[in-house]
Amino acid sequence: MKCLFYDGNLKLIEDYAKPISAANEVLIRVSLAGICNTDIEIMKGYKGFKGILGHEFVGIVEYSPVPELIGKRVVGDINIGCGECALCIGGHHKHCGNRRVLGILGKDGAFGEYITLPVQNLHTVPDNVSDFEAVFAEPLAAALEITEKYHVKPTDKVAVVGDGKLGQLVAQVLSLTGCNLTVIGKHVEKLQLLKDMAITANLSEANFHRRFDLVVECAGNPEGLKYAQQIVKPAGAIILKSTYHGSVTTEPANWVVNEITLMGSRCGPMDAALRLLERKLVSVENLVSGVYRLEDWEKAFEAPGCLKTFFKII
Amino acid sequence: MKCLFYDGNLKLIEDYAKPISAANEVLIRVSLAGICNTDIEIMKGYKGFKGILGHEFVGIVEYSPVPELIGKRVVGDINIGCGECALCIGGHHKHCGNRRVLGILGKDGAFGEYITLPVQNLHTVPDNVSDFEAVFAEPLAAALEITEKYHVKPTDKVAVVGDGKLGQLVAQVLSLTGCNLTVIGKHVEKLQLLKDMAITANLSEANFHRRFDLVVECAGNPEGLKYAQQIVKPAGAIILKSTYHGSVTTEPANWVVNEITLMGSRCGPMDAALRLLERKLVSVENLVSGVYRLEDWEKAFEAPGCLKTFFKII
Repeated sequence: MKCLFYDGNLKLIEDYAKPISAANEVLIRVSLAGICNTDIEIMKGYKGFKGILGHEFVGIVEYSPVPELIGKRVVGDINIGCGECALCIGGHHKHCGNRRVLGILGKDGAFGEYITLPVQNLHTVPDNVSDFEAVFAEPLAAALEITEKYHVKPTDKVAVVGDGKLGQLVAQVLSLTGCNLTVIGKHVEKLQLLKDMAITANLSEANFHRRFDLVVECAGNPEGLKYAQQIVKPAGAIILKSTYHGSVTTEPANWVVNEITLMGSRCGPMDAALRLLERKLVSVENLVSGVYRLEDWEKAFEAPGCLKTFFKII
Repeated sequence: MKCLFYDGNLKLIEDYAKPISAANEVLIRVSLAGICNTDIEIMKGYKGFKGILGHEFVGIVEYSPVPELIGKRVVGDINIGCGECALCIGGHHKHCGNRRVLGILGKDGAFGEYITLPVQNLHTVPDNVSDFEAVFAEPLAAALEITEKYHVKPTDKVAVVGDGKLGQLVAQVLSLTGCNLTVIGKHVEKLQLLKDMAITANLSEANFHRRFDLVVECAGNPEGLKYAQQIVKPAGAIILKSTYHGSVTTEPANWVVNEITLMGSRCGPMDAALRLLERKLVSVENLVSGVYRLEDWEKAFEAPGCLKTFFKII
């Protein structure tokens, strides 16, 4: 099968072996896949992954040990735990020490014609959710992990730092709480997309100093955390969403003195993401900036100032 | 009056001006004061403080605008807010941007014969609490700020990193929850003090990797956070208690991937600390390692392997 394989360099392979599903797995023919910032960070060295990239997808089940799934349009939880350790048994399979993660860790991803995933990782896509919308289920679930773990109040002053793909989805999810939300970014055209949805969006301003109860860091680089520390109120919280290759030097005594809480947050509930998409409470069509064939991967990855870029695979 | 003054160097001053209490303040004659690690960090450059050091004390009220306080034995909340800003009005006076902090920020401290503090900062010491116990009310309150802010469950596996003054108090407070507690330290004799109270205490072991739901960092140096990150479970929490002069280089993506929460935590509820001391639920007498006169400050600060060192002032 055709795929994009990364082994230090990204390359198109035409005759990669079609994956064979294990006993509890389904075989999915990938329809559409999205490029995530994490894919780009992997290509900078993050996680040292080698294999087929890609973890945001929608596809059709071609084979399944549960027959009624065959032919269904599905998205999937990307984390595959061992199923036997205390973390898996306790419901934390995404933290299993032996986990594989689609297109990120030990498991070929979705920038290819076929993938396999365990039956329990699948979520059927509602009919009124388009393929483009469905690919957003995975990053939208990551945005929902914020409200899954942290009580965002309607009266909170909340900042989202970063106006890219993740920041846009996080802002839309947080706006559903009714909170007093400001997105702070560096790209006038991306900030405009938020303003068009009546979400307050600004370039950075000096008067944001210590103004926010909660700051969600979606910048995708170490500067995001440094800036979040400047704009969070004493006794406030910073939620970190970016995964990037790199380190930050900071003074923990400042967190102690100002009693700041920092929470790392990763993948989230895909069923909730599909419910929001089904009810059209989150708008993603304005985030689609380009659709490419796998053969045109160089153009796809170089698309300037893009939001979400897709590979149309079948 | 006699005091220990810090202006880049610590020195004994015999004829420092006795403080004059403001309209809402009491004048306290200091009986006994304790040396905190923060004092030592100030002498390394932390916070750039100049003035009389010391913020752990017990004393007798000599003058008060509220007459019934005169003659009372008191301890005090060390944070003095402006009383007018949104943080003060919201009950966060310890985070007031214009705050003064006894012996730490803009306010002469307790290593002298007299201090002044606002009436509302005072807590009367119960009769059955000794002067030595009372001086521990301030750091014990800081330990209680952990359970004030974070829900420690009886079934949690909890580690305290650091066996010094703060670690000892934190361990005793956490043990009151019934949690599965381990103190990890580097000093056999300090760990023995904990074992003598039937608290599990160990030198670091390799098998602590990713073992604890909650890790409380009381190490007093940047190594504490690095070690905490190794021993906390995925989806676990690290509470930071140390204030020290220095920075740490870390990779925030690890907090995101492992969904670690970090909480900075500082001063806490002194009334609760006095209740624990009154009920003898926390034992501090084994933590008293030396008592000095102000004139002997060099010996007091150089006391090797010490736990809590005191100045007897009257």
